[in-house]
Amino acid sequence: MMSTQIQLVSRPTGWPTADNFRTIVVELPELVPGQVRVQNEFISVDPYMRGRMNDVRSYIPPFGIRETMTGGAIGRVLESTVDDIAVGDVVSHQFGWRDIVQEDAKGFRVVQEIPGVPLSAYLGILGMTALTAYVGLLDIAEMKEGDVVFVSGAAGAVGSAVGQIARLKGASRVIGSAGSAEKVELLTGKYGFDAAFNYKDGAVRKQLATAAPDGIDVYFDNVGGDHLEAALASFNNGGRAALCGAISVYNNTEAPVGPKNMANIISRALTLKGFTVGGYFGRMPAFAAEMTEWLKNGDVVFDETVVDGIDHAVDAFFAMMNGQNTGKMVVRI
Amino acid sequence: MMSTQIQLVSRPTGWPTADNFRTIVVELPELVPGQVRVQNEFISVDPYMRGRMNDVRSYIPPFGIRETMTGGAIGRVLESTVDDIAVGDVVSHQFGWRDIVQEDAKGFRVVQEIPGVPLSAYLGILGMTALTAYVGLLDIAEMKEGDVVFVSGAAGAVGSAVGQIARLKGASRVIGSAGSAEKVELLTGKYGFDAAFNYKDGAVRKQLATAAPDGIDVYFDNVGGDHLEAALASFNNGGRAALCGAISVYNNTEAPVGPKNMANIISRALTLKGFTVGGYFGRMPAFAAEMTEWLKNGDVVFDETVVDGIDHAVDAFFAMMNGQNTGKMVVRI
Repeated sequence: MMSTQIQLVSRPTGWPTADNFRTIVVELPELVPGQVRVQNEFISVDPYMRGRMNDVRSYIPPFGIRETMTGGAIGRVLESTVDDIAVGDVVSHQFGWRDIVQEDAKGFRVVQEIPGVPLSAYLGILGMTALTAYVGLLDIAEMKEGDVVFVSGAAGAVGSAVGQIARLKGASRVIGSAGSAEKVELLTGKYGFDAAFNYKDGAVRKQLATAAPDGIDVYFDNVGGDHLEAALASFNNGGRAALCGAISVYNNTEAPVGPKNMANIISRALTLKGFTVGGYFGRMPAFAAEMTEWLKNGDVVFDETVVDGIDHAVDAFFAMMNGQNTGKMVVRI
Repeated sequence: MMSTQIQLVSRPTGWPTADNFRTIVVELPELVPGQVRVQNEFISVDPYMRGRMNDVRSYIPPFGIRETMTGGAIGRVLESTVDDIAVGDVVSHQFGWRDIVQEDAKGFRVVQEIPGVPLSAYLGILGMTALTAYVGLLDIAEMKEGDVVFVSGAAGAVGSAVGQIARLKGASRVIGSAGSAEKVELLTGKYGFDAAFNYKDGAVRKQLATAAPDGIDVYFDNVGGDHLEAALASFNNGGRAALCGAISVYNNTEAPVGPKNMANIISRALTLKGFTVGGYFGRMPAFAAEMTEWLKNGDVVFDETVVDGIDHAVDAFFAMMNGQNTGKMVVRI
């Protein structure tokens, strides 16, 4: 059996290009005891992957060169040598950008399907994406009932989950920013944000100040740059920021300029806390239980942008980096 | 009885000047029941006072215009109308820049003198200054045994206390920066820092990297600017910064540029936490008990720079802002 896989072959400088990747087809050997073979149904493309393409010190090591791109994926078991994973089971894993994956069984987690919920949701609203939202909002930013919450990149997969979880957990006001009028409309119309603005319409600082006349208590940062500076300007005393992503600067070739108003961190006793979800897998059961309930009750909605074919994984990644997705971007295999 | 007092009369733009202050002499009325009258012996001049001269949103409200400068001070009771404060008692308070103070008794705290310890120490190593160091290092940055700790402005009153407390609490390496060769010598020679450098000798980032070959875990920031950027570059995963002061930018008239490497906060899961000691008075008993022991055992040493005369309070403040002090800067009345 053949497996088509996408590899990183060089580290991008600035925006990644197709030249940074290659497609290989490998013949899979017979299964050895302990392994399973899985037909992927969906693979995930995520903003954090841009960071892993650089060779920098980080909690998560950089992607290897001439190694197959890893990342979230979900599929069905074709063949198994272990007792607790059966042929036909749905499994999620981190083996990433390939159509057929064959690895040690320990790398797979069997998923219980929920009727009416597509498998792709296990990469988004029921997977690492929304776990990131949940952990960042509740554990990192320690959101409390009554807080005013601001989310940047709010129409993205993480951001739209943050906004909805904030509302369900009792935020007094939820504000989001996005990069188009359509996305802003989604935020207030579909995801239940109290206010939203298009960051391309004017200075973020000014737009945020208007949307949050009483200041903000929590900021969930997917964007960095001028969004972080705006949040520092609008923070109330004791404000807390969960720094999750900085898509505005990921592809900069020159070092970006930091916020001008760092001194507010002292005078208002603010906390800025960076995180990557990898350290918080232990929160998956609590998250999954709550999110499953919310989905069943219709309290949480989600969008997906689906691109077809492993051969379009790189294009899907580029489109996501350009903000062409709404909600979770996945590749259907 | 007359009281000489220093008032702020205008808000400085950039470096404060003598014109921003005035001296007034007021006649004190008879004591009313509930009041005490105190002869100040020492008043404190501190970097944070520069921040309070600006009219900005903060945990601590700005100094009032044409109001007497408040701040830490210690003196002896001349007259009392209450049972629990006697004539001759030593009291600390926050009524600041005046020779004689007459206020409600609730504003004064009776201090037990320690033989051999000058009263000025209650403004520094036994007062708010070293409480700031203690809270910032242990509560805000959550220093643990084995951590590598970096302190900027390390020869100052707060910084020298931070370095010594870090060593006593089991830091594996304590590194300090200061602004002259003499201060650097003090850090390693007197205060027990493992390494120190003069930030004027070259790029902070490079000097810190050399002094901390295995990275840093905790950063206590008195300086801001390039020092904070250097710390972000040297942080190990999970690093924590207590942001206490930003003396490098207090007098900027243009907004300073923030750190270029804010993205490290995410990739290394760092925490930056600003604080002002005002929220942590509850830690005073624990701090005072530990510090008193350390002082008695000779485990902690301290320096003071003493300027004589209430009329020189403003000059003392300027000298401190220029780094002309070693250790705690106080004005003897």
